[in-house]
Amino acid sequence: MKELEQVREQIKIFVEDCDDAKSLELLDLLATGKMLRSKLILKIAGISEISIKLCSIVEMIHAASLLHDDVIDEALTRRGKASINAIFDNKTSIMFGDILYSKAFTELTNMPKEVAYTVSNAVTLLSIGEMLDVDLTEKFNTSYDKYMDMIYKKTASLIEASAKAAALLSSLDEKKYSLYGKNLGLAFQMIDDILDITQDSETLGKPAMFDFVEGKVTIPYLLLHERIEDKNRLESLYKKPLNEEDSTWIKEQMISTNALQDSILKAKNLGLEAINVVKDENNDSLVQIMTSMIEREF
Amino acid sequence: MKELEQVREQIKIFVEDCDDAKSLELLDLLATGKMLRSKLILKIAGISEISIKLCSIVEMIHAASLLHDDVIDEALTRRGKASINAIFDNKTSIMFGDILYSKAFTELTNMPKEVAYTVSNAVTLLSIGEMLDVDLTEKFNTSYDKYMDMIYKKTASLIEASAKAAALLSSLDEKKYSLYGKNLGLAFQMIDDILDITQDSETLGKPAMFDFVEGKVTIPYLLLHERIEDKNRLESLYKKPLNEEDSTWIKEQMISTNALQDSILKAKNLGLEAINVVKDENNDSLVQIMTSMIEREF
Repeated sequence: MKELEQVREQIKIFVEDCDDAKSLELLDLLATGKMLRSKLILKIAGISEISIKLCSIVEMIHAASLLHDDVIDEALTRRGKASINAIFDNKTSIMFGDILYSKAFTELTNMPKEVAYTVSNAVTLLSIGEMLDVDLTEKFNTSYDKYMDMIYKKTASLIEASAKAAALLSSLDEKKYSLYGKNLGLAFQMIDDILDITQDSETLGKPAMFDFVEGKVTIPYLLLHERIEDKNRLESLYKKPLNEEDSTWIKEQMISTNALQDSILKAKNLGLEAINVVKDENNDSLVQIMTSMIEREF
Repeated sequence: MKELEQVREQIKIFVEDCDDAKSLELLDLLATGKMLRSKLILKIAGISEISIKLCSIVEMIHAASLLHDDVIDEALTRRGKASINAIFDNKTSIMFGDILYSKAFTELTNMPKEVAYTVSNAVTLLSIGEMLDVDLTEKFNTSYDKYMDMIYKKTASLIEASAKAAALLSSLDEKKYSLYGKNLGLAFQMIDDILDITQDSETLGKPAMFDFVEGKVTIPYLLLHERIEDKNRLESLYKKPLNEEDSTWIKEQMISTNALQDSILKAKNLGLEAINVVKDENNDSLVQIMTSMIEREF
């Protein structure tokens, strides 16, 4: 997609505006992701100067949140590359994150007011989601509602805001697109949580089966805990480094209890609901984005 | 000032909006500072719903920047109280800073566009200033221009923006107030740099004579380095813990070379220039704010 190249170019222009050599150097080291949010915005709002700028703003916000996230999670890799906190230090990630956040917010003030409000409010939710995520690792969480609230805030809110803001730019029905974006985000996080169990570290670009070690009771673990007979064994493995035997046991239990299968089903149902809501919008790309997101392997 | 109480109340309302118990708990633990930016805004724009909101936004931004600053500087105290990173951990400071930043930006979108741009652009400068500050501690900096650029961005930009935004709200001459705010900020930082040398840790609420140990070549050290004969001895003490003898020697040299006196003079001259620019604005409070800022002892 050559329009994603335009987004990358615009991000560079925004960072060049900051007139800080170190920031440009750091930008070059950031691993580019799938740019899901940009793809979504461009498929809804089309390609124009303002939509490319909106994509750049949202990608800068997303990158900033990951920079801080990697410090908080003490992650040394991001998308298969060394993270900025690993190459430099935590300080650099915090500061560069702050620069990307604030430049993005500054550029948002040039957008229509409702767009600016929608996106910045999502960042507030996202930041609270980060806090909830960390708090939920304190002890084995068994609340489905707490999990859903956390992933909505941490992951879905910015995707929801991207879809809504794109709809606002194009005078489309923002409610439909918001719901599509929200469900895309929720399903995205659930698939991420599933891939942590089903994929190897090479495919993931980060350690595999690491969520549970980090204290994250994700959707497959929530369902597993509900259904498993030997709850004690599962709880005893929580926040511990897993040996081969334990991780094999967890995977087997995930399959025999259908916890994994039903987690995938939950993500798919969110996707179907979203597709159904936008079915009269004549935008086949939305179906395609959802399908390829759910079927992704990393 | 009971209007500062209104600002604190408004900050609480904004944080309550976030609907996150942990954030409210953390807000309670934040040490309230001098609220210089709020005083300035209220003296320029008067007391109204919108000016109180602007104060709250700016104070939340300032608090967020200090939360991140304390992680970056590994500071364990702030205004004589334990810092959030000391009470909890670095994660909590990063996340709570992000929440305050993003909520402030969200509320900014309800302000007139030029106000929103002015304040958010100052946060970009502030974030870059933080990066420059850290970079300048890599080796003994002898560049006056680099020091001035850094303190402008790190400290003065938000004070400049506060004055400008307040002027915009009241349809006053924003250029005059910008310059006043900028000089107030520059002088504020210089006085801070001077107090680090002249005051004890109890008065400062943080370790005394610590800037040089941390690698910060502040204005008195810049002037001292220019004028001192035994540059080697000064350079040899850079970034080292100082014993009684060394710190006494530095203080003596600061006095005998007039480095300290001339630093104070520089701050005062910036103050005089600022007061002169706004002399026809019929606002005596601006003179008083500048004077008490320069004459402060902590």
